[in-house]
Amino acid sequence: MHIVITGGAGFLGRQLAKTLLDKTSLTATGDAPEVQRLTLFDVVSPQNIPSDSRVEIVTGDIREPQVLASLVTPDVDLIFHLAAVVSGEAEANFELGMQVNLAATQNLLEQCRQLNTRPRLVFTSSVAVFGGDMPAVLQDDTAPTPQSSYGTQKAIGELLINDYSRRGFIDGRAVRLPTIVVRPGRPNKATSTFASSIIREPLQGQPAVCPVSPEMALWIMSPRQAVKSLIHAAALPAEAWGSSRVASLPGLTVSVREMVDQLRVIAGQTVVDRIAWQPDPFIERIVGSWPIRFATPKAEALGFEADKSIDEIIRAFIEEELGGSFVT
Amino acid sequence: MHIVITGGAGFLGRQLAKTLLDKTSLTATGDAPEVQRLTLFDVVSPQNIPSDSRVEIVTGDIREPQVLASLVTPDVDLIFHLAAVVSGEAEANFELGMQVNLAATQNLLEQCRQLNTRPRLVFTSSVAVFGGDMPAVLQDDTAPTPQSSYGTQKAIGELLINDYSRRGFIDGRAVRLPTIVVRPGRPNKATSTFASSIIREPLQGQPAVCPVSPEMALWIMSPRQAVKSLIHAAALPAEAWGSSRVASLPGLTVSVREMVDQLRVIAGQTVVDRIAWQPDPFIERIVGSWPIRFATPKAEALGFEADKSIDEIIRAFIEEELGGSFVT
Repeated sequence: MHIVITGGAGFLGRQLAKTLLDKTSLTATGDAPEVQRLTLFDVVSPQNIPSDSRVEIVTGDIREPQVLASLVTPDVDLIFHLAAVVSGEAEANFELGMQVNLAATQNLLEQCRQLNTRPRLVFTSSVAVFGGDMPAVLQDDTAPTPQSSYGTQKAIGELLINDYSRRGFIDGRAVRLPTIVVRPGRPNKATSTFASSIIREPLQGQPAVCPVSPEMALWIMSPRQAVKSLIHAAALPAEAWGSSRVASLPGLTVSVREMVDQLRVIAGQTVVDRIAWQPDPFIERIVGSWPIRFATPKAEALGFEADKSIDEIIRAFIEEELGGSFVT
Repeated sequence: MHIVITGGAGFLGRQLAKTLLDKTSLTATGDAPEVQRLTLFDVVSPQNIPSDSRVEIVTGDIREPQVLASLVTPDVDLIFHLAAVVSGEAEANFELGMQVNLAATQNLLEQCRQLNTRPRLVFTSSVAVFGGDMPAVLQDDTAPTPQSSYGTQKAIGELLINDYSRRGFIDGRAVRLPTIVVRPGRPNKATSTFASSIIREPLQGQPAVCPVSPEMALWIMSPRQAVKSLIHAAALPAEAWGSSRVASLPGLTVSVREMVDQLRVIAGQTVVDRIAWQPDPFIERIVGSWPIRFATPKAEALGFEADKSIDEIIRAFIEEELGGSFVT
């Protein structure tokens, strides 16, 4: 199978690539496909990709249709379309967000349609498609009402994936990812970046700022579970999806206090003391507008799973990203 | 006020134009704006538009960005964006539907954004944004799950109107129109065209084919009520819309049998006998997939209204389109 990952230099793309290449990895699921060739596409070269003859690195600007045309060729069986400008950046730079998150997705789908090979395509949508007036618990049939350009672009992507699939141009699947915690690496321009920082930085002896109150809750998923979910989304038969190719994935509702309490249990008060509490009304307003409770019967029936606990999520981060130890 | 109507040669565009020009007309509402200039844009010139110095006819291809640039100028206060390829045609010709219903809407919104004048924009969406697995009664927060490319393009239009409004590029309003009955003129390529034909043609002494069973029901609105609703959508203050610029309009749930029974009451058995019942499984399947019951509390709170009865709808058609008489 020839697999293409757009956004292949991002943390999720790289972790997905590693898992696909090493089916014995912790993250791999029974349904991971056999990889003959894996193309990692991004605007920059990915770091820390294992040397493997099956891997090809392609860099380019996804906004250029000819770049997509040379990337998505008739021999491509499966595309993970992860490339996106993150929420904060899409809000700050409207044109960039529209070009990368919407126009490039449209061009990618058009390229697939032109091929006539009906490639399978997994699209990462987001809980950011929800906002504004919402029910207390979001259902599978709750209408997206995005209150950000990023969420709007993702919601449009879902609709396009659905229609291109219905018409037989692709075999698409769109999964709404919860906020990913603990995201490895450095803080980024996502408004949710603090949710990883308050665990990741203290464990490495560095200070972190928490801009929201401890009572604020999030709907979260670990990177490991996200990678598993993407692979599972690709493996499911087309018929399983029914009349919609979209699913909100199961997550965990966790308050910031619960995250920090569990960090204390695992790593001690000294680590927790590295968090500075500096409420930022702007960030509190945005994060407070996000949905935190979902009923996800469709995804559960399809076999998607949530993480077990915030305890497991923090321990997995220490094990997988910090080599099993942290700075006390 | 300078008003632009895209799709100005269509029956809804023409009726809207007439109502805006003649505020004493039957259809006019108290909130109709004062027209200084009215630009009717379409791919062909509209027929039967009253001679009026305020009216300007512009023909062109809405798919060309430079056409939109010369149409939507800084002095434009209000745009009714009605131009669209109808459902059957958007399904038969995917590229045409995507270009006219999606790309041209995107270009129109971009043109508005470039102007920096925040024009008011009314977008005609449709109940075709719904389909597939749906609750028995659709709520204001039920997720669009279009089962046609037309419905997909309209659902994407709604999301774009919302985000462009939220960011202050336009002051947009998207209204989901029920199936319009009785549509004047000739049958078109909309799958719902029969719902008007079975009333319109027999009243003019002509045969009509009904391709669905009498038990099939539709969610309908008269052209008069649709025009009133568009004008009302334009007149409402921005704040009234809340966090979403979309509303499903109130309609009537009417079975084909009820339509025909009322036609018999008004016009007699001879007229009804001009309907040939020729069930078409393809059309029955599509029409049967449409939603027929909506709860529309948001639209009602905003002051939108449904027609009173199918009796009133048929009598209004006879009065307004047939000069008060029909062929017995």
